[in-house]
Amino acid sequence: MHSISDLLRQLDERTTSAASLLKNARNQAIQTADLNALAFVDWDAAQALAVQCDAAIAAGNTRGALRGIPISIKDLYPVLGMPTRAGTRAVLPCDAMDLTSHEAVLVARLRAAGAVIFGKTNMHEIALGSTGENVWTGDVKNPFDPLRQAGGSSSGSGVAVATGVGVASVGSDTGGSVRIPANFSGVTGFKPTHGAIPLKGALHLSWTCDHAGPLAHSVADCALLFEVMAARSLEVKRIARVPRFAVPASWLRGRLSLEVRDHFERTLARLAALGAELVEVTTPQLPRASQCFTDIVQAEAAWVHRDALKQGGLGFSELVMPPLLRGQTLKAVDYVDALHTRAAIAAELDAILTGCDALLLPTAAVVPPLRGQTQVQVESGLTTVREAVLGQTLPFSLVGVPALSIPTGLIGGLPVSLQVVAARGADDALLHQGQWLQEHVGQSLMPAVMP
Amino acid sequence: MHSISDLLRQLDERTTSAASLLKNARNQAIQTADLNALAFVDWDAAQALAVQCDAAIAAGNTRGALRGIPISIKDLYPVLGMPTRAGTRAVLPCDAMDLTSHEAVLVARLRAAGAVIFGKTNMHEIALGSTGENVWTGDVKNPFDPLRQAGGSSSGSGVAVATGVGVASVGSDTGGSVRIPANFSGVTGFKPTHGAIPLKGALHLSWTCDHAGPLAHSVADCALLFEVMAARSLEVKRIARVPRFAVPASWLRGRLSLEVRDHFERTLARLAALGAELVEVTTPQLPRASQCFTDIVQAEAAWVHRDALKQGGLGFSELVMPPLLRGQTLKAVDYVDALHTRAAIAAELDAILTGCDALLLPTAAVVPPLRGQTQVQVESGLTTVREAVLGQTLPFSLVGVPALSIPTGLIGGLPVSLQVVAARGADDALLHQGQWLQEHVGQSLMPAVMP
Repeated sequence: MHSISDLLRQLDERTTSAASLLKNARNQAIQTADLNALAFVDWDAAQALAVQCDAAIAAGNTRGALRGIPISIKDLYPVLGMPTRAGTRAVLPCDAMDLTSHEAVLVARLRAAGAVIFGKTNMHEIALGSTGENVWTGDVKNPFDPLRQAGGSSSGSGVAVATGVGVASVGSDTGGSVRIPANFSGVTGFKPTHGAIPLKGALHLSWTCDHAGPLAHSVADCALLFEVMAARSLEVKRIARVPRFAVPASWLRGRLSLEVRDHFERTLARLAALGAELVEVTTPQLPRASQCFTDIVQAEAAWVHRDALKQGGLGFSELVMPPLLRGQTLKAVDYVDALHTRAAIAAELDAILTGCDALLLPTAAVVPPLRGQTQVQVESGLTTVREAVLGQTLPFSLVGVPALSIPTGLIGGLPVSLQVVAARGADDALLHQGQWLQEHVGQSLMPAVMP
Repeated sequence: MHSISDLLRQLDERTTSAASLLKNARNQAIQTADLNALAFVDWDAAQALAVQCDAAIAAGNTRGALRGIPISIKDLYPVLGMPTRAGTRAVLPCDAMDLTSHEAVLVARLRAAGAVIFGKTNMHEIALGSTGENVWTGDVKNPFDPLRQAGGSSSGSGVAVATGVGVASVGSDTGGSVRIPANFSGVTGFKPTHGAIPLKGALHLSWTCDHAGPLAHSVADCALLFEVMAARSLEVKRIARVPRFAVPASWLRGRLSLEVRDHFERTLARLAALGAELVEVTTPQLPRASQCFTDIVQAEAAWVHRDALKQGGLGFSELVMPPLLRGQTLKAVDYVDALHTRAAIAAELDAILTGCDALLLPTAAVVPPLRGQTQVQVESGLTTVREAVLGQTLPFSLVGVPALSIPTGLIGGLPVSLQVVAARGADDALLHQGQWLQEHVGQSLMPAVMP
């Protein structure tokens, strides 16, 4: 798989073209259509963009940081000339907007950088869930085994990148919605520090937990998209010494499946063999994250979708109505209580993260479950898919610190990933650390369905 | 009235002593006991502190920024060796603390600066109200007319300073609770930027709106207390040019009593005559502040007092139970809605405040109402005392920008004040601007009850 910087060089050397990259994306989309990654495409409009881009390059204009790179966008972000449905049939806050003149700021930044935005990706309904199952659009299917979940909520973004339908994609992450589909589709996902990429113009789920982030083939590609969407250049920091990683060992006890535990331990052993320092840290506040997250996100989601709920919730499926209704009835004092709990969790994590280069843990506790499956086996017994899948990612969305998910191998043909979490604002250092980790313990994965 | 810096010089020159300043405070407390300013005093302990301070000065130690200055503390802040009742009989979150070893950080800073803390001041019950009426401790009475309200919730702090019971006092301001009693007692009050003075160890009312702030005889005295409580030195900025003041003219239309309107217009005319530039600004978001403030504060107060409310609210009077009960039943979505409204108001005010040196408006829209009075006449007709008194101060607590209240004269023997609001974080500039304003349009007021 070529990196974006390789592709940019090939484009400038005219050994490839934007039109040819787009053609590949289109061919792959046709080949993998059964996986249901795409919500909307406009190949003709994209083709016009690609031709324009090739003409500019031929004329010597090689300025755009993503010139000619075909990119898909999660169907949560308004894009000029494309509908935004967010995987639901309910009325959306953005339905009132004129989409011939309005798009999310981060999309406009990608466009201005020369990205060829060809379509929107399918998602878990209104981003409120992590399986990629959707009664309106149909399930998004895992490219390593179509009987299995693709993860979510940026389900189609993970699948599109994994199957070569474009080179990268933009997802959103409120509790793990970039990192989980990245894990389940065997690609790299990055959730930056809260606020680093502006969400102006985007559809929200939970104002205080929502993050935009890229899914791509490598940390380096994610870094490129991040620079464009955050509108700044990464500070290049050389890693001068052996990295020091924290592991929340006692918190992880009982949470993982046996095979993910085994894989994670082997990853840590390889890091130790490379000279990395590994420190076990205790996190007494962390067990409170899941309930706190649920209260905050459900209340904020009920606020975002208040108009549709006033109309009786018409167009919301039975997958999202129960949490929305709970959010609608939650008391303000319980929400305020959750905000205070969040502050305590944030203080604990901030203290740990400033004392090390990164915190390491598995992204999902299990390999992708079967579609329709709701329970999985972990060390401590049966647990819900939601807890096994979201449980390790949601704390870092809740408190807003940056986190990467990097594929580290296959178990029984299914992808497994390492999550790398850094201190608030340390996005640049995390991306550099992540490149080092990807080089040393990462693995490039090729989905079974690839033609 | 001597300024604190005068007193410090006299102390160092041994022309006065801490013991003598404390004796004055004690005499005044006896003379004005009917006004009910004090919740608790420990003259013996204070006397020991004063003697210790005088001995240190005699030995040449003149370091503490408030050495020997007698100061009272609102009964919302735990002080070593003193009870904290916050004007209520309900169980308080701080009741579980050991008050022989625990006090609020800002109190400890005042103590470390040499302040002689002699007692606690009476307040509106749990700081949830602005009249100073209290069924448990008795009403605090206005020193210009004991039949009238002292304002609140830092009621006793305003009265104590006005009547010479100590040189300064520390209040709290969630919606105007420093500025209103300062106005009604004819003294100066300062509410800094949210977070500038730490509230660690203090009893809260509303986590996101609570501010600590000084009440004193002048802006300069407030600045001295602010420096100690914020643990930093003010940057001295020379005001090089004619100041530019914004006036929210259209928002103020109909809100003021005729006499306060007239007085405010004359103050503006004097400023114009001094060469100040006056700009009328429109504030379309500001009318939303009052309801937004009510939702946020009631919900957060119900959270702070959740344990007492679980016990049926025993010990809360009928003055505070209705808002606490409303806070208890408020929905999370309505609280979240209020947070978004606050963000819109903050954006509007931030834009105005960064475009001028300060925003000017009256502190209270009326002179102090009679105790028991619940309605007052303003230009637009009858309104509630709550709206007339809190309406002009609460927006700036809600969004966290700094504000001063400076006495500018008497109407029919009752004090009236100018409120001066600056941009977030511009505390230093506001205090300097405030000194200029106090010099040019301020007036030193002497309560009728002073012996």
